[in-house]
Amino acid sequence: MNIGFIGLGIMGRPMALHLAAAGHTLFVPDRRSLSEDIRAVATIEADAASVAEHADIVILMVPDTPDVETVLFGAHGVAEGLSRGKLLIDMSSISPTATKDFAARIAALGCGYIDAPVSGGEVGAKAAALTIMAGGATTDFERALPLFQLMGKNITHVGEAPGAGQVCKVANQIIVALNIQAVAEALTFARKAGADPARVRQALMGGFANSRILEVHAERMINRTFAPGFRIKLHQKDLNLALSSAKDMGMALPNTAIAQQMFSVVTAAGGADLDHSALVQAIELMAGMAVG
Amino acid sequence: MNIGFIGLGIMGRPMALHLAAAGHTLFVPDRRSLSEDIRAVATIEADAASVAEHADIVILMVPDTPDVETVLFGAHGVAEGLSRGKLLIDMSSISPTATKDFAARIAALGCGYIDAPVSGGEVGAKAAALTIMAGGATTDFERALPLFQLMGKNITHVGEAPGAGQVCKVANQIIVALNIQAVAEALTFARKAGADPARVRQALMGGFANSRILEVHAERMINRTFAPGFRIKLHQKDLNLALSSAKDMGMALPNTAIAQQMFSVVTAAGGADLDHSALVQAIELMAGMAVG
Repeated sequence: MNIGFIGLGIMGRPMALHLAAAGHTLFVPDRRSLSEDIRAVATIEADAASVAEHADIVILMVPDTPDVETVLFGAHGVAEGLSRGKLLIDMSSISPTATKDFAARIAALGCGYIDAPVSGGEVGAKAAALTIMAGGATTDFERALPLFQLMGKNITHVGEAPGAGQVCKVANQIIVALNIQAVAEALTFARKAGADPARVRQALMGGFANSRILEVHAERMINRTFAPGFRIKLHQKDLNLALSSAKDMGMALPNTAIAQQMFSVVTAAGGADLDHSALVQAIELMAGMAVG
Repeated sequence: MNIGFIGLGIMGRPMALHLAAAGHTLFVPDRRSLSEDIRAVATIEADAASVAEHADIVILMVPDTPDVETVLFGAHGVAEGLSRGKLLIDMSSISPTATKDFAARIAALGCGYIDAPVSGGEVGAKAAALTIMAGGATTDFERALPLFQLMGKNITHVGEAPGAGQVCKVANQIIVALNIQAVAEALTFARKAGADPARVRQALMGGFANSRILEVHAERMINRTFAPGFRIKLHQKDLNLALSSAKDMGMALPNTAIAQQMFSVVTAAGGADLDHSALVQAIELMAGMAVG
């Protein structure tokens, strides 16, 4: 199949290479930053509009909401090259509400739209093991599914409504942040009380306090290994999506709001590029403890 | 071995029966509420002092800090019957700081003291599958261990310091409460945005958002099954221990404090005896959503 792929960075590059390896024909827009391995397998077009003209399905993997808007609707953007019956798949992690707007504008051109953000990071992208959370019409999802299966595992069609995938990704980032704060508060409480956080973690692993975060991130807190992983500044972007969407919908996310502030405490101390498990440093700072 | 057991309620009764079934000789204080199966296997003494006189090891399983203090140091209490070389094991969930004081006063009588709160609830007690978190001297822990193995699995010696077990239990209750709030905020966000929380939960189970709480309590939220389980008013008691201990030590637990307030929102609406997963109702109420 002819596939356009726009956004060939840390995540997009390995994802696109999996598609090419499976025999699909790739079209990508010309960028100086294109890697050699992409240049070797893809047809390079002048711009996003030309990519959309040649492709049956166009996949986006760009950093944030304004990037998606520019790629889709800017000058020489995807919308200019689309024609009736094509499918747009946005795998970026962006605003759920903006996604509804983008999907409607693409639908007006007679094209399908699937929002399908991922989790699993660079490791998951390279291993074709991403978790993919998709929103959009079932027929469009089924058309996208064979491609998703080349890039991920754990593929869920969350709902027919445009943006359902983005909503699910935001929900994911809320839980991950709050589970990190849960472990940070509990282990710092234990340390401050003179207990060994490593033994506390061990004792809690068998019960209802267990989580992937207790398994992975609590160990980073205990070993003080805060190299990313997933950077605090990226998690702050995601929590900002959560909090602004919640405000727009008229609901409160009290612990999400606090977790965002805790990330800001770490950022204020110079930690924006640390792994998100470094949130524990905010709890430690506020407890008058040495932050090592 | 001669074992005193004080506190034969929902938890203590099955725990004591496991000890008797293994061949230990039980001594219990006379209470009208003693069950027939306990009366059938135990020697009934007039009071806690007399229990302590007859036993080599005395186990406590009572509701709260003041109950432990009364049983130990009140009139005709355990302390009056103890003599040099005996061991006190407090399996109640109580204040870590009060525990240090109690342990010191028992040590002054020439006796050992282990604090060993549990998690796993009535189901775990009946199945002899409790998680046991113990604090105290290693020699005392080793003396208690064969008894713990009759009542639980996942037995951890958290530390030599008196109260280390209670600290660990508080850490457990912090994480459980905050993981419940994490799931409550995320699933309510998804519902408010029009997504199906059951599909969102399914999508998140494979990734870093996964936890025992996402597996068990999120399902209760989705199915609206809030029969306890673990009652909100009991979790509020435990978070009160966390927050008052944190204040005494000079540290902040911001999300724990918020979770306690969310439980109070549900309590204000009449939900104190609901399962702690009903915390989601607070988030829903605050979002102007119908709480079913």
